[in-house]
Amino acid sequence: MSDHVLQVIPLGGLGEFGMNCLALRYGDDIIVIDSGMMFPDAELLGVDIVTPDFAYLEQHREMVRALILTHGHEDHIGAVAFLLSEINVPIYGTDFTLALVERRLEEHEMADQARLNRIRPGDKIALGPFEIEFIHVTHSIVQSVALAIRTPLGVVIHTGDFKIDPTPTDNELFDLHTLAEYGRRGVLLLLSDSTNVDRPGFTPSERAVLPRFEEIFNRAQRRIIVTCFASSVHRIQQILDIASSSGRKVAFIGRSMLAYTEIAHGLGLLRIPDNLLLRPQDLMSAPPHRVVAIVSGTQGEPMSAMSRVAVDNHKHLHLERGDLVVHSARIIPGNEKAIGRMMNHVARRGAEVVAGQMSPPVHVSGHGSQEELKLLLNLVRPRYFVPIHGEYWQMSRHAGLASHLSDYGLEDSFVLETGQTLVIDEEGARRGDTVPVGRVCIDSGSIDEIVEDVVIRDRRHLSEDGFLIPIIAIDKHSGRVEGLPEIVTRGFVSPDERAELLAAARDVVVRTIETSSSEERSDWGVIQEKIRADLKRFLNKQTQRRPLVLPVILEV
Amino acid sequence: MSDHVLQVIPLGGLGEFGMNCLALRYGDDIIVIDSGMMFPDAELLGVDIVTPDFAYLEQHREMVRALILTHGHEDHIGAVAFLLSEINVPIYGTDFTLALVERRLEEHEMADQARLNRIRPGDKIALGPFEIEFIHVTHSIVQSVALAIRTPLGVVIHTGDFKIDPTPTDNELFDLHTLAEYGRRGVLLLLSDSTNVDRPGFTPSERAVLPRFEEIFNRAQRRIIVTCFASSVHRIQQILDIASSSGRKVAFIGRSMLAYTEIAHGLGLLRIPDNLLLRPQDLMSAPPHRVVAIVSGTQGEPMSAMSRVAVDNHKHLHLERGDLVVHSARIIPGNEKAIGRMMNHVARRGAEVVAGQMSPPVHVSGHGSQEELKLLLNLVRPRYFVPIHGEYWQMSRHAGLASHLSDYGLEDSFVLETGQTLVIDEEGARRGDTVPVGRVCIDSGSIDEIVEDVVIRDRRHLSEDGFLIPIIAIDKHSGRVEGLPEIVTRGFVSPDERAELLAAARDVVVRTIETSSSEERSDWGVIQEKIRADLKRFLNKQTQRRPLVLPVILEV
Repeated sequence: MSDHVLQVIPLGGLGEFGMNCLALRYGDDIIVIDSGMMFPDAELLGVDIVTPDFAYLEQHREMVRALILTHGHEDHIGAVAFLLSEINVPIYGTDFTLALVERRLEEHEMADQARLNRIRPGDKIALGPFEIEFIHVTHSIVQSVALAIRTPLGVVIHTGDFKIDPTPTDNELFDLHTLAEYGRRGVLLLLSDSTNVDRPGFTPSERAVLPRFEEIFNRAQRRIIVTCFASSVHRIQQILDIASSSGRKVAFIGRSMLAYTEIAHGLGLLRIPDNLLLRPQDLMSAPPHRVVAIVSGTQGEPMSAMSRVAVDNHKHLHLERGDLVVHSARIIPGNEKAIGRMMNHVARRGAEVVAGQMSPPVHVSGHGSQEELKLLLNLVRPRYFVPIHGEYWQMSRHAGLASHLSDYGLEDSFVLETGQTLVIDEEGARRGDTVPVGRVCIDSGSIDEIVEDVVIRDRRHLSEDGFLIPIIAIDKHSGRVEGLPEIVTRGFVSPDERAELLAAARDVVVRTIETSSSEERSDWGVIQEKIRADLKRFLNKQTQRRPLVLPVILEV
Repeated sequence: MSDHVLQVIPLGGLGEFGMNCLALRYGDDIIVIDSGMMFPDAELLGVDIVTPDFAYLEQHREMVRALILTHGHEDHIGAVAFLLSEINVPIYGTDFTLALVERRLEEHEMADQARLNRIRPGDKIALGPFEIEFIHVTHSIVQSVALAIRTPLGVVIHTGDFKIDPTPTDNELFDLHTLAEYGRRGVLLLLSDSTNVDRPGFTPSERAVLPRFEEIFNRAQRRIIVTCFASSVHRIQQILDIASSSGRKVAFIGRSMLAYTEIAHGLGLLRIPDNLLLRPQDLMSAPPHRVVAIVSGTQGEPMSAMSRVAVDNHKHLHLERGDLVVHSARIIPGNEKAIGRMMNHVARRGAEVVAGQMSPPVHVSGHGSQEELKLLLNLVRPRYFVPIHGEYWQMSRHAGLASHLSDYGLEDSFVLETGQTLVIDEEGARRGDTVPVGRVCIDSGSIDEIVEDVVIRDRRHLSEDGFLIPIIAIDKHSGRVEGLPEIVTRGFVSPDERAELLAAARDVVVRTIETSSSEERSDWGVIQEKIRADLKRFLNKQTQRRPLVLPVILEV
């Protein structure tokens, strides 16, 4: 690989939802953009979070100059601690993003070593051959930035996550001008957010939820409970403002809600009028028509504050008949049933549920729809386009949206998946080699608890048909089988059918041993394998199921 | 319970999604409305389908007069075979509904015994104290009916599933007049579909997808592949018509697609122009711009035709660059990720994906939205209202929609969950006793394969943290432990960490045995329990995980 080559190396988030991480390499210098986590599929049994495999970065650790963060959502910063535990590179991000990272690092007792560098939109930094300008974009979390990365071969624009909100609640407009200026001067490569490529039109402004909240606050006779993402500072600000003007006090409920609002308030990003806040423990003693609770746990996570409130198992908040519970958040795919169950519990307590599609909306997306994606493409007018942040079919659709730009200098679009690289040199862009990538499954909150693939495979097998373990005791002197084999089984057949089936299975084992030659009997590996094969065949024939069969030979 | 009492007994589908089944009892006569199945949650590991527990009906088997089916969707007919295997009652339904039931019964070799009675909208039948009139309603499946059930205490209206489609594709209008006439004369109780209660406005007509299909057929340069529900005869008819007028031939792909279209065609419900059909095996040899494939498997089910096509593992259909794949179906909650994965595979083959929200729509719902639900309430003007077919929070919202009817004679609404009964007599309606209900989990296609709760619980436990089985050989003469304990584990720790942890676990077992008194040692139940407790504590401390620990004591 020549030195005068730019490589785009997606390490996560392309062709999959979550764990966004992308490396840019020029010669011997690498910068990393975002280091996010993914919430696991239900199929990854017993796994709590999933991070990218950083093997490529570890192999080139001396080249990695910095980690640049576009914004503070978990799918962009959730794996920072895991990357840092391997390579302690300096980190660049806005105030709010870094404050959230710092909180996570503290949980892992890693905050001391981290080298955090605060940037503001408009700032430029130089890292080896790269010069990076931070550009303010609107998104559902405050202080989100896009990146303009000047390289010796041209400018790369990375949008981060964005919508083009013409009326953001903090009035910090999307910096269209800087993007337009880059577009005018010529952009080599655009990397742009594909999340909402299947939605027609424009995503409504964050302010679009205001009429719905006004309707709710006007109508509610008793307590209002809003569950939203703790990171949705704009949303929370709107609720605080309307609470203040309608004479209700506000209590924040839930660990992440308390932490995020404290951080946002400390940074001057959340304006809290005097005397508006109520301590959680005072919520139930205040007049019901004078309070609002803002609660974390929108996704029905079993231990979250909102889930506990729903089943009346929260210390400070008890739902009562006539209360109004507002679900002001998107449903992350896979969580539909958990959220439905939570809302059923809320309704059973006699509270009214406001959730789902409605007009005016109770929630708006933070990602741009088709018209915004096209506007961004038209502003930037890149020579090459790589859709990012989406499933494969979304990215391929996004590439389709750019096709009219061929009249404006677009030479090619590349739909890359995690691990598939793009190489750009003086000749132009082409697909490069693949790099090692993967998913690292983490079982609890700790960094060490990596669950290997084989363990997950076993768990999946166990979850389908359980296990059956025949235990055969063999006299170590005579080599003879001692007594009848024992059989242990779980998750396989119901207790009623068990006795008969196990008796028959025991016979199968005995027969296998009896019909084996004395040579086979003395080779335990052979006898184990024969028992396994015979038992599997027998069980499958009897029950059409395939439990994990694991013969144990005990030397006594 | 007096004889002059009407009981409404929900056996499934109220407060849960799927397995709709409701009994009406007057004195010693019971009729059952629908007998549906439910697709299991991911948490019900290894379970294929879920049916209601029919214990209540089995206890009162001599009272059950008939099973009445409102329409042919699986959540209304999928458990007919399971009910019939317990109680062979006569079944009433429309042609199409019964044809689908018959097909299922044949799979279970039960078609011969079944007593199927074909009815048409407008027909009236008498069953003991009940007189039932069938009323045509519009829905996503053909030949759907609502029921007007005359009882000695008044008329009960059961809507089945419905939307109020003003322009159905077969021009069979919703029978508003009959409902209105019942409403005018007075209805005791309304039971109405709550599925789409969270959607504002009206659900678009089935015909609303036509402009989208026209756009697709005009634009496509090569093969068009549409995946939709095999039961969506209206949708399939529209695709056939547009294929015919645009000079494309049609191949049906997938077992259920072939079966359903054959049934619908045989009953004259699907008009297939001459020479339109192509055999599946001729699909790839016909010119690509002259064919359409209609494929079953909208939900990304692993063995379905569409899933196999997506991974290029289908005998007759291979996707090629430039093909167009249309997902014309709703996403059943829980299937988002599987469908996303399927669409990614489609996009990787270079085919364009048309899916998701768009205007004009590529799919419309078969259930009425808020305005239709209110229209139906206003037409029927019942004395009592029980929302059915929905999660608890949806039913509770549906009850809220009816509140203005108190000026028109509505006395009360009851949000009932499966098992909670309503009792109506001369005095009026009130909540009654609960009846035994539940979910029966079925592991494979057969009726015998019921998976007990305890087995599922074990599988879930196994799926989270695996198992660990210490095996201790004890000399049956001396009661002494023979050799070192063996430990078998799977799904718990990775092979790398295993050796060290298991050595330590073995020490724990040895220590537990050594520190036990000789009395304890001779009581194997006690020693087993002590080993289990000590090991669980040790493992949890070392790993923060809780595998299933199952000590085995082997007498040798």
